[in-house]
Amino acid sequence: MTAEIISVGTELLMGNVVNTDAQLLSEECAMLGLTMYYQSVVDDNRERLEKAISIALERSDNVILTGGLGPADDDLTAEACASVMGLPLVEDRHTRERVEENLRAHGITEIPDRTWKQAMVPEGAAVLDNENGTAPGIVVKKDGKTVVMLPGPPDEMMPIFRDKARNYLTEGEQQVIRYKVVKVCSLTESSIAYQLKDLFESQTNPTLATYVKTGEIHILVTARAAGEKEALALLTPVVEEIKRRLGIAVYTTDEDETLEMVVVDLLKKYDITVSTAESCTGGMIAAQIVNVPGASDVFRAGFVTYSNHSKRKLLDVKKSTIKEHGAVSEETVREMAKGGVFATDSDICIAVTGVAGPGGGTPDKPVGLVYIATYMKDQLSVEEYHFNGNRQKIRAQATKKALDLLRRSILENYSE
Amino acid sequence: MTAEIISVGTELLMGNVVNTDAQLLSEECAMLGLTMYYQSVVDDNRERLEKAISIALERSDNVILTGGLGPADDDLTAEACASVMGLPLVEDRHTRERVEENLRAHGITEIPDRTWKQAMVPEGAAVLDNENGTAPGIVVKKDGKTVVMLPGPPDEMMPIFRDKARNYLTEGEQQVIRYKVVKVCSLTESSIAYQLKDLFESQTNPTLATYVKTGEIHILVTARAAGEKEALALLTPVVEEIKRRLGIAVYTTDEDETLEMVVVDLLKKYDITVSTAESCTGGMIAAQIVNVPGASDVFRAGFVTYSNHSKRKLLDVKKSTIKEHGAVSEETVREMAKGGVFATDSDICIAVTGVAGPGGGTPDKPVGLVYIATYMKDQLSVEEYHFNGNRQKIRAQATKKALDLLRRSILENYSE
Repeated sequence: MTAEIISVGTELLMGNVVNTDAQLLSEECAMLGLTMYYQSVVDDNRERLEKAISIALERSDNVILTGGLGPADDDLTAEACASVMGLPLVEDRHTRERVEENLRAHGITEIPDRTWKQAMVPEGAAVLDNENGTAPGIVVKKDGKTVVMLPGPPDEMMPIFRDKARNYLTEGEQQVIRYKVVKVCSLTESSIAYQLKDLFESQTNPTLATYVKTGEIHILVTARAAGEKEALALLTPVVEEIKRRLGIAVYTTDEDETLEMVVVDLLKKYDITVSTAESCTGGMIAAQIVNVPGASDVFRAGFVTYSNHSKRKLLDVKKSTIKEHGAVSEETVREMAKGGVFATDSDICIAVTGVAGPGGGTPDKPVGLVYIATYMKDQLSVEEYHFNGNRQKIRAQATKKALDLLRRSILENYSE
Repeated sequence: MTAEIISVGTELLMGNVVNTDAQLLSEECAMLGLTMYYQSVVDDNRERLEKAISIALERSDNVILTGGLGPADDDLTAEACASVMGLPLVEDRHTRERVEENLRAHGITEIPDRTWKQAMVPEGAAVLDNENGTAPGIVVKKDGKTVVMLPGPPDEMMPIFRDKARNYLTEGEQQVIRYKVVKVCSLTESSIAYQLKDLFESQTNPTLATYVKTGEIHILVTARAAGEKEALALLTPVVEEIKRRLGIAVYTTDEDETLEMVVVDLLKKYDITVSTAESCTGGMIAAQIVNVPGASDVFRAGFVTYSNHSKRKLLDVKKSTIKEHGAVSEETVREMAKGGVFATDSDICIAVTGVAGPGGGTPDKPVGLVYIATYMKDQLSVEEYHFNGNRQKIRAQATKKALDLLRRSILENYSE
């Protein structure tokens, strides 16, 4: 089956915002096994919007629209879809009540009339409650086509899509499609391809595909079967086999879980505190950890010691170490990690030093060279990386690898 | 005149990458005064790509394509455009030489035949050298329509567009369009609207528009005139008037300059060193400063003191201060800023503490409350903010406001 996306909103055509909705939904559709040939963006104009919907309905089985469901005059998505599909708009009483309740809970008592526009849906539509906003998701099925309308803000759109809308998209399928994402950070794409070569080559159901992200790789395993149970029965042994082969390199198989969430969970589980000592990453590792709600229980403190002076003063790195081996060296990163633990009384410290460029590279120590170390229970682990890309990309990759070394160090030292 | 964008690439339809090219180009087109009604994404398929180009050429004056210019078999953009426009493909000798030189400079001596595909362009096309890669930009003009083809990677695409391609898009215009961006961080949109009310209302040439970004606002001033000189003559007095009215709140009028670049430049100019003391931003301010190449000259060190213990231990915040006023308070942020200067011997310290949520808010200190302080030359500046949004958004806004307070503090203390 095919799907296409229409993103509605003049703000996208003016470049005020990036179309992250389209990327998120494309990935979701790929995971559902839907083929996508087209995406389009149209402005908040009734005529052009209706034309775009007509074109999409002619060439695709599923059409997903985002945006244009709010109460404003130029929010036209529901009207335009109803008109193209030849359906009248009717009020959804449940949505009217939900919106009213929601606004009153936020202390709004004088509700403007235009608000109720958000409860108007094409006749016969399924209405998908929005737990994070007012405008609901809407699904209309007619003549073998499915139209899904979703609110524009990603934090409203994605929960409705994942929890409710996506089931409608594959309803027409004789088969059920289920997938799992295996997330890996400490292996390269070619090393994964080598270790899973026979699986990649022999598997037709489930299928395997790799997605390369900044500093990590996601392996998507997708199964098709007559039912949910059968699909999972196909999926599970392959996922287990991948986990068995890649071992500790797999950091999660939960699609919603990020590496920093896994790290914070492990720190909490084993009741360990962490500190950071960052040079080239300049605070990015600390910022990632602190972005996990509740990180305050486990994050002791962080240092950004970009200058040699601060490495010496705050982390007690020896002057002679920097002089002999340089600020970007295995020796320096070792002392940074040790120094971080002693300066903060934390159980573990993760330290990073490297050449992020564009300047500062030498033949011996080229741009992209990064050393990462953890120190815990008197034990040091050090890794050396050579990253490609610009300054920002090198730092982002170093941040990911550092968080993963932290994860592996905790597992090696604490899990029985 | 109208413009539309066609993004070419299966990876966009699979959701492997976000379509940042479309956002960047939309903003550029808006700045050039071009009207955009449509954007589309198509996969690497000759038939569908040609169809998309035909549709675009029927309804828009300018068509900008990104991606599909590389040496691979499924890089089809130049071929498809040539075919739709009824032009043969010819070899551009200059490009062939440039590509060869580029590859040899990177030590590649065995050049595969398919490489030369990148030198094939529609007959009569203007070829725009790519300083950051091999595939050039291509401009074809025919029957009053302009087609611009650009490589997909944003760091190759944008320099070609800004330095070379954009002039072709407005060539047909009787008028020249020129713009300036006035970037402001420390004022709200409504405050800017109020202070510039008469300008917004009375101006027809140049026109004014505001773009709301995370933690800052860009005012776009666009003039149309018979020539470059006339356009600038219209533009300059309005930009100067905005700068006069908004004063120190304007941090730059250079479209390529970011707030952290301005901050690092000021620090270098006055030969001042800076340190950071971050609680809720967790290292994001340090990471922004360190991302400016050459920041090592002025960035002394940074602390991420997320816990009370680390605020006391590393920044010497008094136990009684936290006990009486709380970790999120004006009193605590003052001591953090002072402590940062003393702990690092820096000239200035920027400190932040706040409630980023989702938990931790109280009626007195709700989620979104953030205190920011700078300490320099024995002088403290403190600001209190109430931000909306999720955890990540609150932290991003706090980071911006902190960098701007740092900028204003330097200007107030050092400029004569």
